[in-house]
Amino acid sequence: MTVLILTCEEDVTADMVVVHLNAAGVPVVRLDPADLTQTVALSAEYVHGGFRGHVSSAGRLVSLDALRSVWVRRPGTAAARAPEPSAWLTEEASQALYGMLRGGGARWMNHPDAARRARHKPWQLRLAQRSGLPVPATLITTFPQAARDFAERYPDLVVKPVSGAHPQDPPRAVPTTRVPPGTDFAAVAYGPTLLQRRVAKRADIRLTAVGDRLLAARKETPDDGDSDVVDVRFAPSAAPWRPAEVPPRLADSVRTYLREAELAYGAFDFAEDADGTWWFLECNQSGQFGFVEVDTGQPIALTVARWLARPEPGGHPRPTDRCGSAAH
Amino acid sequence: MTVLILTCEEDVTADMVVVHLNAAGVPVVRLDPADLTQTVALSAEYVHGGFRGHVSSAGRLVSLDALRSVWVRRPGTAAARAPEPSAWLTEEASQALYGMLRGGGARWMNHPDAARRARHKPWQLRLAQRSGLPVPATLITTFPQAARDFAERYPDLVVKPVSGAHPQDPPRAVPTTRVPPGTDFAAVAYGPTLLQRRVAKRADIRLTAVGDRLLAARKETPDDGDSDVVDVRFAPSAAPWRPAEVPPRLADSVRTYLREAELAYGAFDFAEDADGTWWFLECNQSGQFGFVEVDTGQPIALTVARWLARPEPGGHPRPTDRCGSAAH
Repeated sequence: MTVLILTCEEDVTADMVVVHLNAAGVPVVRLDPADLTQTVALSAEYVHGGFRGHVSSAGRLVSLDALRSVWVRRPGTAAARAPEPSAWLTEEASQALYGMLRGGGARWMNHPDAARRARHKPWQLRLAQRSGLPVPATLITTFPQAARDFAERYPDLVVKPVSGAHPQDPPRAVPTTRVPPGTDFAAVAYGPTLLQRRVAKRADIRLTAVGDRLLAARKETPDDGDSDVVDVRFAPSAAPWRPAEVPPRLADSVRTYLREAELAYGAFDFAEDADGTWWFLECNQSGQFGFVEVDTGQPIALTVARWLARPEPGGHPRPTDRCGSAAH
Repeated sequence: MTVLILTCEEDVTADMVVVHLNAAGVPVVRLDPADLTQTVALSAEYVHGGFRGHVSSAGRLVSLDALRSVWVRRPGTAAARAPEPSAWLTEEASQALYGMLRGGGARWMNHPDAARRARHKPWQLRLAQRSGLPVPATLITTFPQAARDFAERYPDLVVKPVSGAHPQDPPRAVPTTRVPPGTDFAAVAYGPTLLQRRVAKRADIRLTAVGDRLLAARKETPDDGDSDVVDVRFAPSAAPWRPAEVPPRLADSVRTYLREAELAYGAFDFAEDADGTWWFLECNQSGQFGFVEVDTGQPIALTVARWLARPEPGGHPRPTDRCGSAAH
């Protein structure tokens, strides 16, 4: 039984996992959908109520029945490297590839439907609340008066994008920024604005979830840190990531979140306050983990490899392809 | 309890349904996401584990708690009519609106996740098979030899797009076309190709499913019809649509399909052969129904209105926003 990895050629994180799969003797096929119709080919046949599918990459042919899992890492745009690329060819190739894979019984990390849904920030906040995770008071609004009322109740605020990243090519992260006192919120009427109570944090927490396994890391906020800089991505601190214990109740909530989100993998960001509470900021279903593994020595790549290599419980293919991972 | 309809301004099909909702005294808010930040505003607050949301359109404000259902008809691109439209504003506005609505407890026709997934043709074919619907033998391939083998087994073939419609602006339907005998399949290597056994049809069937209610219509294929023209969309026949009985076993399969697809609405196209078998061609989760209602007099708009107006069974909001309609 083979592990299929969909990712671009230069992906060090995938390399880290492949090393472990190779060491365990687990067959791996790695392909980039961008190479479709060049070095990647596919075929799916629907005959007499049955379904057979094959995919080949660089001359290696694998049957869908022989796939135990599919890891959607950083796949390129389908058929992007075709001799005559076009939006039409991309759509056809993408539907053919993912449509075929959806028809199989392999486990997904993560299923494309679950992955897509998980990117919605407002949906994340609501699911985190429902899962019992502490969420800082948040407002998303186009009503200036609603923003003013919120700022009265929560005078220390940050503003951040609703959608997470600017849709440039390449996408550009927009930093989370403090809202100065006395801010005029009239411009809120021109675009939805996300305001959130600022957490006075003493550490950043990155919790990497792989199936049921939770690996947390903690990076202390420097005492002399500029408290106007709230976005750790734009203020790299010299402090290293250190392994951290996951509080048991929080672990339960994180597992609830993953189950409801139908995710097999998630990278959670929390802000730890002076009381030690971990405040949910976001869950990135495709978050990087290499930098944490390097700092902490936590075996994240190995855990991912083991999840991918695990045989399907009971060995039964799923009865149908509903959204989400078969692991849940 | 209000019905929210997301659609563009000129939508005669929505008008047909609104007439029935008005007659029944059911409150309706109709809005186009394209008008966001102009005549449409929203606000969502996540505080102390709770969630409150509001949306307003043309001065009418409605709370998320007061929504019984959301009908996603033909919504425009979010914030497309803003004074300074941009991809960034569209993404922010789309996430804010749909992210907020996802957090509520209303029933969806259809839920955006289910709708998106349902557009995948290869996925449709597999689900139709699994639901027990007859599916004509189909091959999707980039292997010329696989296409040649398939053409030997099924000499009378049609070719059609994998993805359904050309992604132009506006999208352009690509006609299903007969494959002439002796076709050279070498070009299959340059793009995934969908080949399907041609059904020698004596009628087209359009089955409109609204919740559990199935309304079928049948249009006879003219005897003198040009059998090279297989795509009814490009060969309008003078024959009218007539109401048709749905065979009970097929009805069971259609309901299984809808349940697995988590769709509250679906427009199924079948080809009826000389034996009276209905062969599944596709299910369009946003298919038009006005033309069938006009020809047959079937109360489709009324059935949609009743589904939208129905109170939630038990009156409980859903515990979480998993993909798909709460109706299933």
